[in-house]
Amino acid sequence: MPTLHDIIAARPHVYRWLRPTALHPYAGLSQITGAQVWVKHENHQPVGAFKVRGGLNYVAGLNATQRQAGLYTASTGNHGQSIAFAARAFGVCATIAMPERANPDKVAAMRGLGAEVVFHGPDFDTAREWMMQEAARRGGLFVGPTDEPLICGVGTYALEIVEDLPDVDAIIVPVGAGSGACGVGIVAKAINPRIQVIGVQSAQAPAMQRSWASGQLTTAEMRTFAEGIATRVPFENTQRIMRQVLDDFLLVDDSDIEHAILLLWQHTHNLAEGAGAAPLAAALQIKERLAGKKVVLVMSGGNLAVDTLRRLLQLHA
Amino acid sequence: MPTLHDIIAARPHVYRWLRPTALHPYAGLSQITGAQVWVKHENHQPVGAFKVRGGLNYVAGLNATQRQAGLYTASTGNHGQSIAFAARAFGVCATIAMPERANPDKVAAMRGLGAEVVFHGPDFDTAREWMMQEAARRGGLFVGPTDEPLICGVGTYALEIVEDLPDVDAIIVPVGAGSGACGVGIVAKAINPRIQVIGVQSAQAPAMQRSWASGQLTTAEMRTFAEGIATRVPFENTQRIMRQVLDDFLLVDDSDIEHAILLLWQHTHNLAEGAGAAPLAAALQIKERLAGKKVVLVMSGGNLAVDTLRRLLQLHA
Repeated sequence: MPTLHDIIAARPHVYRWLRPTALHPYAGLSQITGAQVWVKHENHQPVGAFKVRGGLNYVAGLNATQRQAGLYTASTGNHGQSIAFAARAFGVCATIAMPERANPDKVAAMRGLGAEVVFHGPDFDTAREWMMQEAARRGGLFVGPTDEPLICGVGTYALEIVEDLPDVDAIIVPVGAGSGACGVGIVAKAINPRIQVIGVQSAQAPAMQRSWASGQLTTAEMRTFAEGIATRVPFENTQRIMRQVLDDFLLVDDSDIEHAILLLWQHTHNLAEGAGAAPLAAALQIKERLAGKKVVLVMSGGNLAVDTLRRLLQLHA
Repeated sequence: MPTLHDIIAARPHVYRWLRPTALHPYAGLSQITGAQVWVKHENHQPVGAFKVRGGLNYVAGLNATQRQAGLYTASTGNHGQSIAFAARAFGVCATIAMPERANPDKVAAMRGLGAEVVFHGPDFDTAREWMMQEAARRGGLFVGPTDEPLICGVGTYALEIVEDLPDVDAIIVPVGAGSGACGVGIVAKAINPRIQVIGVQSAQAPAMQRSWASGQLTTAEMRTFAEGIATRVPFENTQRIMRQVLDDFLLVDDSDIEHAILLLWQHTHNLAEGAGAAPLAAALQIKERLAGKKVVLVMSGGNLAVDTLRRLLQLHA
């Protein structure tokens, strides 16, 4: 399991390319939740999501032979953008498998970063299994979405939170494959175990939450619109870490996530994708527990497809 | 006229409260414009606009008596948020006059920052004239939206641009009252006079552009939806500076600004308000001139009202 030290060691690799992101307080969000709310703006990253930190740390740690062989991965979008960004930074080739009905803006962004995008299967897990075999066949490195260097890289945003708001009481983080939640949990628990770290997933894709709650790796239905937290098959290594560092793991309905996207726009003028709005939906679900507390909502990412946005605004007119 | 030195001197006052904002390159925007496009993300500021830099520099320079008397200003939104933010930071009272049909999110944000908001008249200029009289009557300081400390504060973002991208060829900046354009122009021309500084306003509110082009202060119709650049009465001091430091000043139609909002969302996953999208509309208008050049579009601000967004998505379905 990565340590605080591993995450601190990732910082120079991350800050070679990126600046720390903003942590802004919002009076409007504090009013509607009853907590004192800050938002960690990982949506301000160049690819609109925290994952870019992990990709940069990953590629920085590869040797010349590994870089030359090229990188292969699978993604619903943000992880792939991260690998594409890092690959371009280091002049490495990247091939990314996506589900056939992928968010078109994320596809365009990866291609704009120079990555090759191939579509395979109906969901992330199918694309991933296929790409792993392909990578082995082609002799390249398959980047698993929860590989340790990724967790260490993304954990750097948690260090920024604790440095900017040392007396934070709770951090609510969306869980897809779990790298972000692990990074936050490792940092928070090493620095101040009283910081509550709360994961959140959609009730329409609860595989990671159910596995965490039951202690058994469990697949589950996956029909959320929020592709950033749409996991059907849980990840063993992040589950193992999350059992140690998460204080709670909540489920919120897709409709609550949609509502939270609009609330975040109204009160922060930042447009979150589903994953990035799930923490606000969770905070509204546990208002009593958070009353008066200093709460950080991790907004990652910000890559909402324009058609999804149009649908939301029609639904919630 | 403020100098580069005055803007450098503003930095400690700005960075006491704010971090430098991101300057990200975007492959998608480069493709559609034919230039090499970076976006300066002033929409990532705590109040969603560059003006907060100016407010902080302004209040930092006041003496105890001035602070105690309280601040009065008028605004369509972003300037007022800036003064509200700075007033709260320094524990000063702020009263802000807004036009009666103001962007409701901006009103809520100012109140969330602790400012008193009063509505007066149909547009910014009416609210401003009234508030100036009120401030005099109440013995407080009226903060004009183009006062020099504001120009110096906002100019700090131009220094960040030149530091992050020293070989920038052109910077396109939206013009409301003109403080941002002045700050950018002063910095660019002092550091490298070959940097083209291009202002942009809506053809549906061209008072500042017409005054600049004619050399005569000229009021003009004002019916743009983009309240951040909705000026009816031009400002003399910023006009004087802009005549020295702007290379060009373009007008773009509101419909082109609306289209640019959607293009920016698609390619950057940042939602700009009208003022923040006008630079992209301008870049698309002068594609030939910018071909292959390194161009920075200033995205400020990001405070689009949700009803405006809904209307845009319906119009451009």
